[in-house]
Amino acid sequence: MSSATGGTVRTGVTTSAAPLTANPPGQRTVLGRDAPLRLASGATIGPFNVAWQTYGTLDATRSNAILVCHALTGDQFAAEPHPVTGRPGWWDLAIGPGRPIDTDRYFVICANVLGGCMGTTGPREIDPAIGEPYGLTFPVITIGDMVAAQKLLIDALGIERLFCVLGGSMGAMQVLEWAARYPERVFAACAIAGAARHSAQNIAFHEVGRQAIMADPDWCAGEYFRHGKRPARGLAVARMAAHITYLSDRALHRKFGRSLQDRQAVTFGFDADFQVESYLRHQGSTFVERFDANSYLYITRAMDYFDLAQDRGDGVLANAFKASPVRFCVVSFTSDWLFPTVESRTIVHALNAAAAAVSFVEIETDAGHDAFLLDEPEFFRVLSGFLGGAAELAGIARRTVA
Amino acid sequence: MSSATGGTVRTGVTTSAAPLTANPPGQRTVLGRDAPLRLASGATIGPFNVAWQTYGTLDATRSNAILVCHALTGDQFAAEPHPVTGRPGWWDLAIGPGRPIDTDRYFVICANVLGGCMGTTGPREIDPAIGEPYGLTFPVITIGDMVAAQKLLIDALGIERLFCVLGGSMGAMQVLEWAARYPERVFAACAIAGAARHSAQNIAFHEVGRQAIMADPDWCAGEYFRHGKRPARGLAVARMAAHITYLSDRALHRKFGRSLQDRQAVTFGFDADFQVESYLRHQGSTFVERFDANSYLYITRAMDYFDLAQDRGDGVLANAFKASPVRFCVVSFTSDWLFPTVESRTIVHALNAAAAAVSFVEIETDAGHDAFLLDEPEFFRVLSGFLGGAAELAGIARRTVA
Repeated sequence: MSSATGGTVRTGVTTSAAPLTANPPGQRTVLGRDAPLRLASGATIGPFNVAWQTYGTLDATRSNAILVCHALTGDQFAAEPHPVTGRPGWWDLAIGPGRPIDTDRYFVICANVLGGCMGTTGPREIDPAIGEPYGLTFPVITIGDMVAAQKLLIDALGIERLFCVLGGSMGAMQVLEWAARYPERVFAACAIAGAARHSAQNIAFHEVGRQAIMADPDWCAGEYFRHGKRPARGLAVARMAAHITYLSDRALHRKFGRSLQDRQAVTFGFDADFQVESYLRHQGSTFVERFDANSYLYITRAMDYFDLAQDRGDGVLANAFKASPVRFCVVSFTSDWLFPTVESRTIVHALNAAAAAVSFVEIETDAGHDAFLLDEPEFFRVLSGFLGGAAELAGIARRTVA
Repeated sequence: MSSATGGTVRTGVTTSAAPLTANPPGQRTVLGRDAPLRLASGATIGPFNVAWQTYGTLDATRSNAILVCHALTGDQFAAEPHPVTGRPGWWDLAIGPGRPIDTDRYFVICANVLGGCMGTTGPREIDPAIGEPYGLTFPVITIGDMVAAQKLLIDALGIERLFCVLGGSMGAMQVLEWAARYPERVFAACAIAGAARHSAQNIAFHEVGRQAIMADPDWCAGEYFRHGKRPARGLAVARMAAHITYLSDRALHRKFGRSLQDRQAVTFGFDADFQVESYLRHQGSTFVERFDANSYLYITRAMDYFDLAQDRGDGVLANAFKASPVRFCVVSFTSDWLFPTVESRTIVHALNAAAAAVSFVEIETDAGHDAFLLDEPEFFRVLSGFLGGAAELAGIARRTVA
């Protein structure tokens, strides 16, 4: 037998074991100093840090604040270059002067979630009690815990009522939790590409990601920091699997199809022959440079545990929104199969049953779940329109045209 | 801070590094002894083994043979207990006396694909030239190569014309390749839950699986057999990711929903709280006991490379079936998102354009891609009806009622 392939094998994903950048720049507030925060698990945490960024100016009556809640792998650098990657903020398209979330009119706050890895206390941060990272001694947290931590931040900023809480994906889970938990502290709420509970399929995808991380020997049972290692390969695989779920079959076909990467014919090997393979490997290897593997475990777990009907409605979602004064906007995308429209409809039906004010829009797009991060003109019109209408009701001053 | 979780972490997937069972029982034929088989890559292979099983009796005119082509992780033990797992054959529900593929009437042949790991030559088999497994020196193969090997087996069995070639998923790819490559050797062809080319999304999912295997240090750049190791954790992760794609959101919701595994409440840890997690871990750990990681790389690659229009039609799929005498049946399932109905429709349109005889049925089910392996009464009626009608045309004797 002769072989045309030879023995060369490149596994493709190049990863580095270098530690993540510690202490990213930006605002940081110590919370829970007087009384620790009691978590859903029963554990307590405090004092702890919340890292946050803002865009725009808080008005004199502190009435124009929008809290933007980030998704699983997002962070507080929503509308400015990312301090680690140097790339534009994850929602740079949506937040800024004259943009849908108009920083000439609104004051935007974005905080890294509890359990995150960009400055808010999470498994990679130093536990002051022992002088080394928490790792898996960090308590398992929930979406409710993330929101409780954000609420302490909003208290600390002296904001009585948020004009709007707004977010996509896991951000939408936080939006719903905010509205259910602190309805008097929220004027409007916009839940984009979200769900009121994590589906079995989504738990399954998260479990694959966690298993990929835990299967990496460099994970060291969660104590990689103690051994100067990082489970970069496992985290890259987790990211690659997840990334497919953020797109759509059609978007992948449109972007890549079966096009080959820098070659005229397949190589009969395991190198990245197809552009889509090369793209995916790139997604994996860049992600590990900015994200902590244990944070990935904790945040996916928080999403898995999210079940608003059970947690705040005795099994009936409408109960979670009983007598809610909050004005809701729910948005879904036709090609989103991770958080499909049926999940948004479930939220809308519950809000209707609770006689809450809600508008619902399903945006036609082939971009999949990631559509909320992209330049989707119809979506931006909905976002801008909802905020503008609510701002009129709330009496927030119009943007001053220079 | 106090933690309710403690430090115990179970990664869940228990895997063994024990070698796979070598030399499974059953028929084996040495092929390519006189002239080696030339592969699509340009490499040659021969002599090589094909391992196969049969069910039913070949009639006197050798006219009642059905070749069943297996899917990615299938093998030749289609309708009998699996020699490694002891579980029923993967298509036990469909093949047997009085079943849709009626072994009282038809003679069923199922052969392990080239590159497989159940006795047909593949990366885990011993290369006689060096006395140890091929590993990555095994040439990268294509669906066309698998079919060319099967055709040598059919020649060796003295079967002039197969009554039917039949298969689901990767099996359907082989069916289409058979019909396009050897139309005079096939009377009827049934392609179930298949496609005429692998989509970008499917290549992406395969790439995740391969990266999971290659990220496992026990893979040892493909030479794990030399080190007494097996990349069981990586292969288990690959299987878990793939397994989700074989089901559907709705099926997972129906089967598991958010039900907890043997507990009343979540544990605030990373153990398998949810039934769907436990199920997925089980899928991963049982798979690695019967499958070779390098075979997984080779067979996924063969699927990625499959593009019948390009390979056999100069870019036009209908050309691959020009003047085909074969009677086709194409079947898809409504909830199959891995090989969605649109892929089957593409095949049907090409067959129509080629003026070939084709019937097409889309089966309503929530079972996802795996529906072809399950007890789906409407699907079984279609299968049995198509085979019965074609058998009448082919003059195959009816089942003798005892």
